[in-house]
Amino acid sequence: MAGPDPRTDPPGDHRFAGDPVFDLHVGGKMEIRSRVALDDRDDLSLAYTPGVARVCEAIAADPSLTQQYTWVPNTVAVVTDGTAVLGLGDIGPAAAMPVMEGKAVLFKQFGGVDAVPICLATTDVEEIIATVARLAPSFGGINLEDISAPRCFEIEERLKGMLDIPVFHDDQHGTAVVALAALTNALTLTRRTPATTRVVVSGAGAAGVAVARILLNAGVGDIAVVDRKGVLNSRRTDLTPVKKALAGDTADRHDRYGSLADVMVGADVYLGVSGGTVPEEVVASMAEDAIVFGLANPTPEVPVEMAHRHARVVATGRSDYPNQINNVLAFPGIFRGAFDVHATAITEGMKLAAAEALASLVGDDLADDLIVPSPFDPRVGPAVATAVAAAARADGVARR
Amino acid sequence: MAGPDPRTDPPGDHRFAGDPVFDLHVGGKMEIRSRVALDDRDDLSLAYTPGVARVCEAIAADPSLTQQYTWVPNTVAVVTDGTAVLGLGDIGPAAAMPVMEGKAVLFKQFGGVDAVPICLATTDVEEIIATVARLAPSFGGINLEDISAPRCFEIEERLKGMLDIPVFHDDQHGTAVVALAALTNALTLTRRTPATTRVVVSGAGAAGVAVARILLNAGVGDIAVVDRKGVLNSRRTDLTPVKKALAGDTADRHDRYGSLADVMVGADVYLGVSGGTVPEEVVASMAEDAIVFGLANPTPEVPVEMAHRHARVVATGRSDYPNQINNVLAFPGIFRGAFDVHATAITEGMKLAAAEALASLVGDDLADDLIVPSPFDPRVGPAVATAVAAAARADGVARR
Repeated sequence: MAGPDPRTDPPGDHRFAGDPVFDLHVGGKMEIRSRVALDDRDDLSLAYTPGVARVCEAIAADPSLTQQYTWVPNTVAVVTDGTAVLGLGDIGPAAAMPVMEGKAVLFKQFGGVDAVPICLATTDVEEIIATVARLAPSFGGINLEDISAPRCFEIEERLKGMLDIPVFHDDQHGTAVVALAALTNALTLTRRTPATTRVVVSGAGAAGVAVARILLNAGVGDIAVVDRKGVLNSRRTDLTPVKKALAGDTADRHDRYGSLADVMVGADVYLGVSGGTVPEEVVASMAEDAIVFGLANPTPEVPVEMAHRHARVVATGRSDYPNQINNVLAFPGIFRGAFDVHATAITEGMKLAAAEALASLVGDDLADDLIVPSPFDPRVGPAVATAVAAAARADGVARR
Repeated sequence: MAGPDPRTDPPGDHRFAGDPVFDLHVGGKMEIRSRVALDDRDDLSLAYTPGVARVCEAIAADPSLTQQYTWVPNTVAVVTDGTAVLGLGDIGPAAAMPVMEGKAVLFKQFGGVDAVPICLATTDVEEIIATVARLAPSFGGINLEDISAPRCFEIEERLKGMLDIPVFHDDQHGTAVVALAALTNALTLTRRTPATTRVVVSGAGAAGVAVARILLNAGVGDIAVVDRKGVLNSRRTDLTPVKKALAGDTADRHDRYGSLADVMVGADVYLGVSGGTVPEEVVASMAEDAIVFGLANPTPEVPVEMAHRHARVVATGRSDYPNQINNVLAFPGIFRGAFDVHATAITEGMKLAAAEALASLVGDDLADDLIVPSPFDPRVGPAVATAVAAAARADGVARR
């Protein structure tokens, strides 16, 4: 439908010429496309003035028509402040853009979702919340991305309370959904049940908190979350409110405390979202048929070869090993499903449904080195979307 | 480059079924497209992790690389608060979206510019300014749209002062550029020179103020701007700061005052951007070979047949009469030209250059009923862009 594009991509910088990553990024990774013809005055009078005025008037009289006659209900803002980008940390909004564009093209490719990168020139919690709330009429959903903890928790919670569209912090919940899917299959392989499985979550940032929460909701009975100072436990006096609440729901229940090494003795599952390296003797102290997920990128907390010496099921965040825990398995389908039913929120039930759908896709292929499907399995997005849409209806957040 | 799109457009509302305007709008008028392949793990490792991290690090070290390796420098935010949408007035941000999507697809079609509609849930001047300033790292330019006067003047001026990317209020300057182009050719046809031409501008809102300002910059010597209470003149005590300043540069210079009817006697040019209807005896009182532009849509201030009884050159904002003054002749090429040289602003010189380029495109076809080119003339966008880019260099605002 588009006419000739007069844009000329800028030349790449000579310092990076011939580097395939930089060559691919020249001119950016995404663009806007028209879905309507604009070839003559008649086209213009339908898509723009005078015709468009009637669509505006209809929406002014009945705002629900936004869902039918604009791109809003299929469009998500991918919002960052650039404070926690990949493993790079606080690199600022401009430098975060290539990741946000990457996220946007993954949203389209794997979920048919139109995503707009929004990199904000503020790191102030109140300013971020106010800004996103003012943008809300333009979008069908908000995907928060690469915002550092603990700010990300307050930003997400408050925006969820203010807005009637899905608000989803992918670093928390995307990771949590895929980790739960993988763990579900790993427990099946090792003949464990969630209620009696002992899990150690290493890391209490965005991903660690969300992983612990989804495991609790999935019925895992014995979780210890560990930060740099040891197990989150109410005996500690240095905990943020988020960590204190989590301690009450995890280690407090079995009065677990001490260091990572202390709680790893006899643990069934190690789930690392922290970085750093776990000493081999600590991994060796785990239970038989242990499960080790070292999700830090690019260097897993437990080197893969070492993990295999002591554990039966090993997963990482890397694409060059089996069992990659990759958010792209979750977020496109989750938003696709939420958008398909015009959901007003993404509930815990929708996240659990997404994890279940992902886990069951592996089916009869389930093996120690195949606990999650490939991101390129074309069934992934539709299966997650269908499960999420059904859960949205069950949870009463679907508008159609 | 995109994979299969699992989106299903929603059904249109039964109340509007079969209406070609509504049918066209089902599912919205635009979408995001990927410009890169994402077909296997190697693609993913270039466009997303781990490859993308190196592009982020490079931009963190040298922010100017944003211009080469992201979509930012080709992307404009089309920002509204929904307070002055078309002739519909304050219909709010949700109902404004179809116009903003329309603008976005015109930006792409006629300028190769990627445009993102941003409809804000606030009408507070300070909040709009703060919000747009925080969005700025995501965009190469800001197109303000359908924001009511006089708020639009302060918002534009303050954002121009804060940001180092183009900020352009199209309702002001797009209209002004095309009106100047048309008037330039009308003056040629009627053998007038700007300095000695008497112009009446009817309307002192966004378009009226901008039209008067660009005519002043183009050398028109004798302008009277009229609002609902008569000629803007420093004798009046009810003028806003913007109107007071304009009075000093226009009617004060020739001490013109009174009503529209008073200043129309003997005037060479009537330029209406106000709505309402001018009585026929007032039009009849103009100079010989008068020029009448009635730009209100859908009803010109001077009905076309009446205008032709008393004027030689007649223009409107309508597509069903000759001489349509249509902003789409200006804004796509203006941003294309600004983006091509990474301009930090859109200067008065760039607007004048755009008007000159548009006027000269008519060339030997110049006639009373052909004073502006067609929006579908493929030379329009490139000619405006080239002129604007050259003017940006001349004005010292080009970064390449």
